[in-house]
Parts: sequence; structure tokens; C-alpha cells
Amino acid sequence: MERIRYDYDTFLKDLRTLADSIDERFDAIVAVARGGMTMAHMLGEFWNIRNVFVVNAVGYEDTRKLGEPKIFNIPDLAGCQRVLVVDDIADSGETLACVMGKLKERYPEKRFKTATLFYKPDALFQPDYRVKEAKGWIDFFWNEDMRRYNGSRIA
Amino acid sequence: MERIRYDYDTFLKDLRTLADSIDERFDAIVAVARGGMTMAHMLGEFWNIRNVFVVNAVGYEDTRKLGEPKIFNIPDLAGCQRVLVVDDIADSGETLACVMGKLKERYPEKRFKTATLFYKPDALFQPDYRVKEAKGWIDFFWNEDMRRYNGSRIA
Repeated sequence: MERIRYDYDTFLKDLRTLADSIDERFDAIVAVARGGMTMAHMLGEFWNIRNVFVVNAVGYEDTRKLGEPKIFNIPDLAGCQRVLVVDDIADSGETLACVMGKLKERYPEKRFKTATLFYKPDALFQPDYRVKEAKGWIDFFWNEDMRRYNGSRIA
Repeated sequence: MERIRYDYDTFLKDLRTLADSIDERFDAIVAVARGGMTMAHMLGEFWNIRNVFVVNAVGYEDTRKLGEPKIFNIPDLAGCQRVLVVDDIADSGETLACVMGKLKERYPEKRFKTATLFYKPDALFQPDYRVKEAKGWIDFFWNEDMRRYNGSRIA
């Protein structure tokens, strides 16, 4: 599979495109950890939303793939009504589907939407908002830049 | 007070400096939201730590400063023993002091350390690890770049 470098500048462009495409207001953002955390941080600042939370999803235990992802640390959403759940990519879509299942089960009265940077057309869960089809393996800067750093950022 | 632009490239350099200065291993990272979220995301990827959590701290209600910050969504740290708590800056130090108080009260048997990018010498709480003294108001890229974006990143 082709590997695609995804640097900070491209991310910024895409995140702004994502934000500009969202035509409704939210009072909370929930990031799926870890992939959605940087997005949630920057969207929270951009929209001036202090209610930025994280939910943890783990698909593997050691090297064994779990039957379905384990979802934990579901945040306290008291006082929030319209919640945007963000992740970097809807790949198989399994993680987002499970996260949304758990959130809606816990908070049936709240309104949830989902947003990702990347999606795959055959994902079993399609986010409400998304920017780009993933046509390869995405090397996100948050995975790569710290490892590759040797005194300056490597383009 | 002088305003200091803090762009992604400088952040990457400083975060790598921070990581390289930390001579112990952790099995979980807790970000203070929102300021510590991008750091926690990238440190989690760099160190291959999946247990990346967030705790929420709010110092203001509407425009009224609270007597002490409200700390909520304390994460489930079951199975974690050595926890690094990260935030962007120890300014007055009040937020970190309150967060650490709550975490130690909930988890007296676990070992906590703290890390920030910036500190102020007169902060009432000094992190165990930190990179730079804040000699002005820091305009972090996660605050600024989305607003300033107009087709390309503005240096």
C-alpha cells in the first residue's frame, strides 16, 4: 500500500476545510484517542469550545486483535447537548461505530455528529463530515515528526 | 506583555527536547485539556504509549474566575502505575497544582510526574520536566493557526 506523508501544513489546510464545511454549532467535542486529539484541541480553540473531551478506544490487547474495540473513559457530557466526535480516519469504521454506539447508549438524549480528516469508501461507518479519501497508508505528522526530528523538521 | 508566536516547528523542537530530557519510563500520559492535548498525542505516539488520557480543568465560569479550578473527567488509570501529566505551561501553576491534588487523592498508590513546555519562575507549582521560561504571552499555534489560515500558513 502506498504510504502518504501527511505533514502539519497539509493537516492545517484540511482541518480548516473541515471546520468550514461544518454548518452547525456544537457545545462539546469528543476526540477518539489518540488519533483525534490534535484535531479536537485545535477545533476547540478555533470554535472557542472549552468542553473538549476524549474517549479511549483500544482494538488490540498486546498483539491480539479484540473481537470489537474496547471503549473506555466515556466522558461526562452533563450540560452538553450537541457533540462532535472527531477522529483522524474512518478506516474500517469499526472504532467509530463502536464509540458512537457506546456514546448514544449512555446519552440517548444528546445529538451526536462525527467528523474525520480521512475516510475509506468501504468503511462500515461513514462520518457526517470528512475531507479526503484515504488512498494509501497515511503517515500522520503526529506519528512521524518526533521520530524523524534531528535538529530541524524533515520535509 | 510581549506576545510570542509559537509555531509548529518550534513546538516540535521543544517537544523533542522535552522528551529527550525525560530519563524515566511511563505507562500512561494524562493531558490537561485543552493545552496539553497535542503534546500528549505526539508523546504517546513517540513513546508508543496507548494509555493517553485527558483531564478537564476549568478556571472560569462564564467570565467569573472560580476560587479554584474545577477538575473533572478524571480518567480511569486502572493498570497504570507511572503517569506523566502534561500541560502547555505552568503559568500561575494553579491548574496543575489542583489537577495533581485531585489525581493523587484519587490514586494515592500511583507515581505521578509533570511536564510542560513553558514555566514561569514564580509559578506556585513547578513541573518536574520543562523546557523554557515564558517571558511573555505565548501565542501557541493551536490557538492561532486555524484563525490566521487563509490558504497557506502565515509565518
